[in-house]
Amino acid sequence: MSVRRSSVQQLLQSQELEREVVVKGWVRTRRGNKYVQFIALNDGSTIHNLQVVADAEKFPEETLKDVATGACVSVRGQLVASQGKGQSVEVQAVEIEVLGKADPEQYPLQKKGHSLEFLREIAHLRPRTNTFGAVLRLRHALAFAVHQYFNDHGFYYIHTPIITGSDAEGAGQMFRVTTLPDDHPPRTASGSVDYAEDFFGKQTNLTVSGQLEGEIAALALGKVYTFGPTFRAENSNTARHLAEFWMIEPEVAFNDLQDNMELAEDFLKSLVRYALEKCPDDLQFLNDQYDKELLSRLQFVVDNEFQRLTYTEAVEILKTAKQKFEFPVDWGTDLQSEHERYLVEKHFKKPVILTDYPKDIKAFYMKLNDDNRTVRAMDVLFPGIGEIIGGSQREEDLEKLRTRMQQMNVPEEELWWYLDLRRFGSAPHAGFGLGFERLVLFVTGMGNIRDVIPFPRFPKNAEF
Amino acid sequence: MSVRRSSVQQLLQSQELEREVVVKGWVRTRRGNKYVQFIALNDGSTIHNLQVVADAEKFPEETLKDVATGACVSVRGQLVASQGKGQSVEVQAVEIEVLGKADPEQYPLQKKGHSLEFLREIAHLRPRTNTFGAVLRLRHALAFAVHQYFNDHGFYYIHTPIITGSDAEGAGQMFRVTTLPDDHPPRTASGSVDYAEDFFGKQTNLTVSGQLEGEIAALALGKVYTFGPTFRAENSNTARHLAEFWMIEPEVAFNDLQDNMELAEDFLKSLVRYALEKCPDDLQFLNDQYDKELLSRLQFVVDNEFQRLTYTEAVEILKTAKQKFEFPVDWGTDLQSEHERYLVEKHFKKPVILTDYPKDIKAFYMKLNDDNRTVRAMDVLFPGIGEIIGGSQREEDLEKLRTRMQQMNVPEEELWWYLDLRRFGSAPHAGFGLGFERLVLFVTGMGNIRDVIPFPRFPKNAEF
Repeated sequence: MSVRRSSVQQLLQSQELEREVVVKGWVRTRRGNKYVQFIALNDGSTIHNLQVVADAEKFPEETLKDVATGACVSVRGQLVASQGKGQSVEVQAVEIEVLGKADPEQYPLQKKGHSLEFLREIAHLRPRTNTFGAVLRLRHALAFAVHQYFNDHGFYYIHTPIITGSDAEGAGQMFRVTTLPDDHPPRTASGSVDYAEDFFGKQTNLTVSGQLEGEIAALALGKVYTFGPTFRAENSNTARHLAEFWMIEPEVAFNDLQDNMELAEDFLKSLVRYALEKCPDDLQFLNDQYDKELLSRLQFVVDNEFQRLTYTEAVEILKTAKQKFEFPVDWGTDLQSEHERYLVEKHFKKPVILTDYPKDIKAFYMKLNDDNRTVRAMDVLFPGIGEIIGGSQREEDLEKLRTRMQQMNVPEEELWWYLDLRRFGSAPHAGFGLGFERLVLFVTGMGNIRDVIPFPRFPKNAEF
Repeated sequence: MSVRRSSVQQLLQSQELEREVVVKGWVRTRRGNKYVQFIALNDGSTIHNLQVVADAEKFPEETLKDVATGACVSVRGQLVASQGKGQSVEVQAVEIEVLGKADPEQYPLQKKGHSLEFLREIAHLRPRTNTFGAVLRLRHALAFAVHQYFNDHGFYYIHTPIITGSDAEGAGQMFRVTTLPDDHPPRTASGSVDYAEDFFGKQTNLTVSGQLEGEIAALALGKVYTFGPTFRAENSNTARHLAEFWMIEPEVAFNDLQDNMELAEDFLKSLVRYALEKCPDDLQFLNDQYDKELLSRLQFVVDNEFQRLTYTEAVEILKTAKQKFEFPVDWGTDLQSEHERYLVEKHFKKPVILTDYPKDIKAFYMKLNDDNRTVRAMDVLFPGIGEIIGGSQREEDLEKLRTRMQQMNVPEEELWWYLDLRRFGSAPHAGFGLGFERLVLFVTGMGNIRDVIPFPRFPKNAEF
């Protein structure tokens, strides 16, 4: 019977030495001399490579010429204690089979370091690098932690629709989804494009948020969350924006703004704690390579209470700050990135939750405070990231909601079902949205959001 | 200090009686007489209602008039042992507050049963019914089981792109995604619509599958899976098709067709087992209300080995079958639903995995067998559902893949990166796709796929 394949991770952790093993993976490097050759093998199961040692009498250079950087090989051999430093075990090769070559003249990922910009051009190969292996393993760990947290806390995962007939969500510009012929679409008598003829019988777009549908589910099942792709057709070429990104949106019946803050803080801390526990090697690598303060920053978030204050209090702090801001601060204006960073990084030196923003700079569905000027909104601000979470208690009163919709030109006909939630069995409820890539950006310490999603979508780019 | 809210689920399972509790939820029914009133309260945490008992001296009919079906209420009271049958505990109300009314003249969900067709029209309220509560809790449980299975088995969750610049996936008709003005889009010199001016600088569509990008990740990280929305712009008005549905696609480096079958069978059984263990009450309800054989069918799938045979063997069985088929069977033609059902439900009486289909009826990326006529494809066929999984070992040989692409008119320029995977460090690998709604359909025993997703998308329907 043939030996079952082990992963590199399994072998590096194995205590059972002096046994025959089979391991398959990609060659990171090969070096050596006329006595012995060393192959560093990686199969994605961990950031660490397995050292394969090949006796040069049995495997001379001409035999190993295809065992080059990037090639895929299968190795049979003995797992033994390693003499060298940097690893406790290694494999003494008995048989090496090249499964897939990688011509050194053509393979773009040679030994030398590559810029993140260059790697973005070859997003189909970059998962084979240490950096992107680490980022993708962390991305997985964080996604799993999201599902586990909510499952453990009695939330139900709801798949809200991606294609929406509504453009009233108001969170940003939308992509149109259509099957009409582009060249000569059908037209109505008045000459405009006739969307009654389109696939869904009306104009449809890609969702910018699952919140409104999430509220439907919360007002039936109690605690729910979404975790799905959302879209913004904004011409933003920044290190913080993507046209397609994943969003997590919990929504909880009977929660008020206070409960919402408790949930947001506990949730974020639990995610960061999970990454620290499950991915120490990947985080150590990113800490060493990209951001020497990464690990201490993550630990700090887990260990400290977030600072909570109102927008109004924050404006007072900013107005009396010694720092010069590019944009002036005044009650009623939206805070700029420089203001948020000042509060988080300079003034409080920890994550901040701002609440009770002026109603005019927030969405129509946020619950109006008794002062009639502010709404029960909250933004969670993180060091280096700015806003990582935005949320609110929702307006549960039918008439107040209708008034806000009229004031903000949100058409009632489109959101008849959203109003029905307040017409029939309405309840206080609250929720928030966490941009998943912002979270991954924070936890990995990477500088550009295009490097924390496998295949980024941004203006003029939909490659792969 | 005020008492913390408990969920209905927590109270029904509680052993601590004679204590003050607060519970909030929606009224399913209220009945009673001049001595006592009984309120059935549900908060989505379980299919069971909590009985709230109100002394009619303290809560006469005129006080309780707003405690009507569909209203949202908060109840404070004593948790006590129940005298009535059907529940072991109940709450003796001390205080009842109506949080949100539901006018009996207007609220569409009154006591009487409603047709599934009618409930589809009010998809914003149907999660408040027993049926959709059960379905959505099961949908959650299955989604979590998917993530847990893969996490436990060392797979990484990969978010493949939703907006794709490729239309070469070949799995079905696509929706176009655009921000060009619909009325007078920019045109090239030759008069056609100028997609260079579109958001992404070229024509883009909604993905029909994440497999090709999944292969990128598998050939770096080893074991990966996707779980995301996919789209088909097909004018199919059936109980089995949606325009927007969620798909799960594992992809594993170094797996062959045999490994792929092992994974598919183990995965499906583990999901069904999880639902049986975690959702017995919801399944019992669906079994009793919709499908008396549901529980025994689920148990049967868990307990029995799937029958494995080749397409060629299946054609032989079908040709000699006594049953008359509408469509004739001949080697080389695709099997129809009636043939699949005959094999599963009549001949083998268990799930079936068919392998090694004729190359001409399968996709270009499937690995060619040595006979040069068949490919290493596999379909898993389930009772009542038909094909629940489709997968294959992938062609890892560059030249064979190029030949198949040429034969099937798949443009190489568009899939340069897919070819690169075979050019650099290629490896045997295999994977499959599981339509998540087909799985939920099977596990819930529901008859129509529009009833197992919160907000179904189909021709002429994108409501909510």
